[in-house]
Amino acid sequence: MPNAFSTTNALVIKVGGSAGIDYDRVCADLAALVKAGQPVVLVHGGSDETNRISTLLGKPPRTLTSPQGYTSRYTDAETLDIFAMVYAGKMNTRIVERLQKLGVDAVGLSGLDGRLLQGPRKASVRAVENGRQVLVRDDYTGKIETVNAGLLTTLLSAGYTPVVCPPASSTEGEAINVDGDRAAAAIASALGAKQLIILSNVPGLLRAFPDESTLIPSLRYGELETALGFAEGRMKKKVLGASEAIAGGVEQVIFADARIDAPIRAAMVGRGTVITR
Amino acid sequence: MPNAFSTTNALVIKVGGSAGIDYDRVCADLAALVKAGQPVVLVHGGSDETNRISTLLGKPPRTLTSPQGYTSRYTDAETLDIFAMVYAGKMNTRIVERLQKLGVDAVGLSGLDGRLLQGPRKASVRAVENGRQVLVRDDYTGKIETVNAGLLTTLLSAGYTPVVCPPASSTEGEAINVDGDRAAAAIASALGAKQLIILSNVPGLLRAFPDESTLIPSLRYGELETALGFAEGRMKKKVLGASEAIAGGVEQVIFADARIDAPIRAAMVGRGTVITR
Repeated sequence: MPNAFSTTNALVIKVGGSAGIDYDRVCADLAALVKAGQPVVLVHGGSDETNRISTLLGKPPRTLTSPQGYTSRYTDAETLDIFAMVYAGKMNTRIVERLQKLGVDAVGLSGLDGRLLQGPRKASVRAVENGRQVLVRDDYTGKIETVNAGLLTTLLSAGYTPVVCPPASSTEGEAINVDGDRAAAAIASALGAKQLIILSNVPGLLRAFPDESTLIPSLRYGELETALGFAEGRMKKKVLGASEAIAGGVEQVIFADARIDAPIRAAMVGRGTVITR
Repeated sequence: MPNAFSTTNALVIKVGGSAGIDYDRVCADLAALVKAGQPVVLVHGGSDETNRISTLLGKPPRTLTSPQGYTSRYTDAETLDIFAMVYAGKMNTRIVERLQKLGVDAVGLSGLDGRLLQGPRKASVRAVENGRQVLVRDDYTGKIETVNAGLLTTLLSAGYTPVVCPPASSTEGEAINVDGDRAAAAIASALGAKQLIILSNVPGLLRAFPDESTLIPSLRYGELETALGFAEGRMKKKVLGASEAIAGGVEQVIFADARIDAPIRAAMVGRGTVITR
């Protein structure tokens, strides 16, 4: 039986699935923290690999853009199968493997396990295609409303390190695609985490993407709406996730660079964009 | 928080991944048992779907046959990725989804999670190809030696129903392919289960495969070695699993038909091939 973790000071880390992310480096840093007694919940993505496998399987990815400019993956039943294969199958298994090799007793979970991540499936999704609004009805996506924090604390108390990914569970128990950054925000809020670290392949929030010299070192909660204006593409969801986490009681959300050495510990001491209430 | 299960009378059920298996029917029967308070661990396969996806991805399956006539999947690193995608990704997620829809609070696990299933990776595998013995060295396969029963009882005690599949963990923490029937046998032994039910697309052990009228209704442990002689193909591993389970203290192993109504409850009352000490 591994040593129990305290569940009162859990750190939630989200690591994206974009090109350039070095999972070996992230896992090595995470292992150092866990071995020092830090309880951690890791949330991961898999978008790039899902695009690659989808294309290989003859089902190239299709992106929906909302009237507000948010992008999401069009996820019909067949896409959800591929999504689950890559996220919960390949990515999650290989991350758990990396951590087990490093001596971290990791346990992989999708949001369906114990209905860890649950919320309503959207009956239809409004999207803009070629300048016209369309209504997409066969999409399996939704928004997280509840987190089964009990499952995470049960595992942490028994000494395990949860490694979490979408899909989530709809209210009816169907597998649904949800955003990983917002999933991490919901988990951090539910666990009462002090810090949520969101790692990706940029150094943080950039005022003029992709110019890395325009990194914003700190932001207050009240400035997040303005930040949505210049946040580029996928960064919009991260800003939304940060906003939800702070509203949910998390003290600090840090957008940080996954491509550097010891990326988690660098973020913990403020390297990146630090968002506070 | 779901109701806790007693962990002293767990039932272990293995359901194969061959064509003709009706997972809806198996899950409906399992849900009825779980709702009546029966603690269950479900172990599942995914071989047919792995063959299909492998072929679609341009990596058709290759079968190794040992000098003793046992067959196994050739599993290099790329095949293991596909194996994990199908077993831990698609199959596991969709089974957990089915159970969640039926009100069972299922949690999916691969053998890497908490090193649930662990054993040494084989340094090399001896196989017969075109009548000649060859030595295969880049194979990620192994044999389970230990089961983390604590992870299963932690989840059962918290009211969850574990849904388990390969891959397992090597002693070094690498993902390895292991046989699902023998994994189920190891789990049943580790939990002190009274019954292990192995469901597949045949009614049980047939003296003259595929003639279903030659079903053997019961067998003693001492007769299993003889049974290996006429067990066909994949049934050989099931006989081996049964032998390991009985040696490990399981009272009854039942080979039964997944294609009938209420397949688990039919097996529990002896429909199929019942193996006892």
